[in-house]
Parts: sequence; C-alpha cells; structure tokens
Amino acid sequence: MTFADPIATDLEQSRTRILEVAERHFRRIGYHKTSVADIAAELGMSRANIYRFFPSRTAINSSVCGLVVKEVAEIVLAIAQTDAPASKKLADLLTAIHRQSTRRLVEDRPMHQLLVAAMDGSWATINAHNEDILAILKALVREGLRTGEFKVQDADEAARGIITAFLPFFHPVLVEQRVQEGEAIAACVHAQIRFIMTALGTSDRALPEGISA
Amino acid sequence: MTFADPIATDLEQSRTRILEVAERHFRRIGYHKTSVADIAAELGMSRANIYRFFPSRTAINSSVCGLVVKEVAEIVLAIAQTDAPASKKLADLLTAIHRQSTRRLVEDRPMHQLLVAAMDGSWATINAHNEDILAILKALVREGLRTGEFKVQDADEAARGIITAFLPFFHPVLVEQRVQEGEAIAACVHAQIRFIMTALGTSDRALPEGISA
Repeated sequence: MTFADPIATDLEQSRTRILEVAERHFRRIGYHKTSVADIAAELGMSRANIYRFFPSRTAINSSVCGLVVKEVAEIVLAIAQTDAPASKKLADLLTAIHRQSTRRLVEDRPMHQLLVAAMDGSWATINAHNEDILAILKALVREGLRTGEFKVQDADEAARGIITAFLPFFHPVLVEQRVQEGEAIAACVHAQIRFIMTALGTSDRALPEGISA
Repeated sequence: MTFADPIATDLEQSRTRILEVAERHFRRIGYHKTSVADIAAELGMSRANIYRFFPSRTAINSSVCGLVVKEVAEIVLAIAQTDAPASKKLADLLTAIHRQSTRRLVEDRPMHQLLVAAMDGSWATINAHNEDILAILKALVREGLRTGEFKVQDADEAARGIITAFLPFFHPVLVEQRVQEGEAIAACVHAQIRFIMTALGTSDRALPEGISA
C-alpha cells in the first residue's frame, strides 16, 4: 500500500493553481503581455515563489500550452479507441484535429497565439503532444493493416506521412493563412483525407461516408 | 508587323530599374527597413515618381517577391519539360522546390523573410506563382496517367493533394521551424515523396532512384 507524498501533493496543487491563473490571464490579455508579477499578485505570492515551481517564464507558457493541446489529444484518443473501422477513425480523427485548430483560431485567439509561439519555439509540451498524436496514428495504421483496410509496407513511415500531409490543416500559422484567404476549407479537408486514404491503399468503396467524392 | 510601343517600353524599363534597386536594398537591409525614399534617392527620382510605376509600397514588395519565385517556377518547368518518366520528374521537381526553399533560408535570408510576409499577406505574385506550380503539377499527373505510371481518378485533385502533402517542405515558416529543430530533412523529404507516390498508385518498383526506401 502506498500513501501520496503530502509535500509532492502540495507542490502539484501550487503548480496547478499557478497554471490556472496564468491561463486566465493569457486568455484575457494575451500570453506575451502577462508577466510573472501579474500571476504572483493574483495569487498573493512573491515572484520568487513562482520561480520555485517553474524555472522560467517560458516554462509557464509551455505548461499552459500543454493544457491546451491535452484537450486535442484526449479527443483524438477517444476516437482511436472506438470500435469503428480504422479508416473511419482516421478520417474522424484528422477532421477533429482540423476542427480544434480552426475553432481555437476563431473562438480562442489568445490560445491560438500561444500555439503559434509554441510551434515556432519548438516548446517541450508541443513536441511531446506531436509525439503522442504520432503514436496514436502509428497504432491506428497497424490496426488498419491487421483488418486489411490499409496496405502499406511501413506503418511508422505511413503515420509520419499522414501527419505531414495533413499539417496544412492544423498548423496554427497555416490554418490562419487559409482562413484569411477564405478558402472553402471543408472541401479541401475532405479531398486531402481522400488523398491520404489512397496513399494507405484504401479502396474507394471503403472510404468513410462524407469523405468519398 | 508590329512595333514595340516606345512609351510602354520606357515604362517597362523604369519598372525594371526600380525593382532592381529595391531588390538590392531588400538584400542589404531587409524589405521592411527599405523605404520608397531610399529607392527613389538611389535612382535620383522623387518618391512621387516611383508611385507612378507602383501604386503602393506593397506593390513593390510583391513584385520583388515575384522575381524571387520566378526562379523556382523556371526550375520546376525545366524539370517538367524533360523526357524523363513522370514519376521521376515529380520526385525531382518536389526535391528542387524543397531545395530552393532551404537554400533561400540559409543563403538568402532577406528574401526568405520577404516570402514569409508574402505567404502571410497572400500577395498577388505568390498566389499567381502557386497557381503556376499547381498547373505544372496537374499536367504532370495527367502525363503519368497516360503513361500508366499513376493511377488516380481525378488528376486535378491529385495535384492539389501532392502540393498540400508537400507544403511542410517548402512553406517558408515550416521550413524555418524544421531547420531550427535540426531534423534530418533529406530523409523526411524522401519519405514524404514515397508517401505521395503511393497515393498516386506508383508501384514500389517504379519509384525513382534515391526515393525508394
């Protein structure tokens, strides 16, 4: 039997409170305008105390970014764990990743800006998130190989191919450019998923509903 | 028999001279630090005179950008016009587009920055360039369909799929992020070209040399 370490739990609670306040400030005034002093003031702490929990301002930014992308990872994982055919799950999962990205741009601009910075600065949490998504995709491709839906030689390479081919529909900078240009994005997303399905050797008749031309 | 319109020719020469000076300034101090006054001074012109040839500062930026991407379009067209098999031309053409993009980032940073702005602002010359490249790709996919190298239902959709799937390897912002992360880009480029070839129904044995796994 193990007991939770009370000191570790206190540390975790303090970190969580700091991140909650940081996230609220980021949403209100933007991450680049939020200072560690702002966060400390709201928590009735000294700045030095904040630095006991986060080594740097960048660490706070990166951790808030981790919270934002965790939401996407949870949606993606939930789709991957359903009983649907692998090809349908892949189509749904890519559509969901795209939707989260455009939704953030339109409805949650400050967090969109945070993700732009995260991708640009290659922050630890965004890299970890990308690896998580890639791992889910690799497992999904292997699942599709077992069920005979996909026909590829190298599942890992195919998973990387999928995510790269779909990057224009979820990378924050590219999504912003696409939305600015007022492209008919939904049709483009479907077409790109069809392209990806062809690369996976999915026959036309096996394409999920809504994706077939 | 037609004669060149001397007034039109004069106008064209003046435009060319203005763009040459602008390009030189952009390379030396960056496009955002170059003022219309700088360009006018070097040409011994008034600013008002510059505006006779270009309606705005943005029009000058966009035209210089047009010169930069023209170079890429010429390389791509030259590859598309050789007698090689369509699959080899496609692989060579994508590799060349990627190479130009990384070369610019490393050796010609001011023009890289100009292209970042062009993509972000959706400037007329970059949009026209993207349409040109897409047209070349569409023709190449149709060529591959005729020779039996490619098997796709819709050549135009396939061409758009190719360019979207390869965007991470030539979009200036994404190329910069990739280079920063120090990824083994050449291997990634080859893998992505293989993924694209699979989507086009190219059999493994037909993959161009250097691209096969």
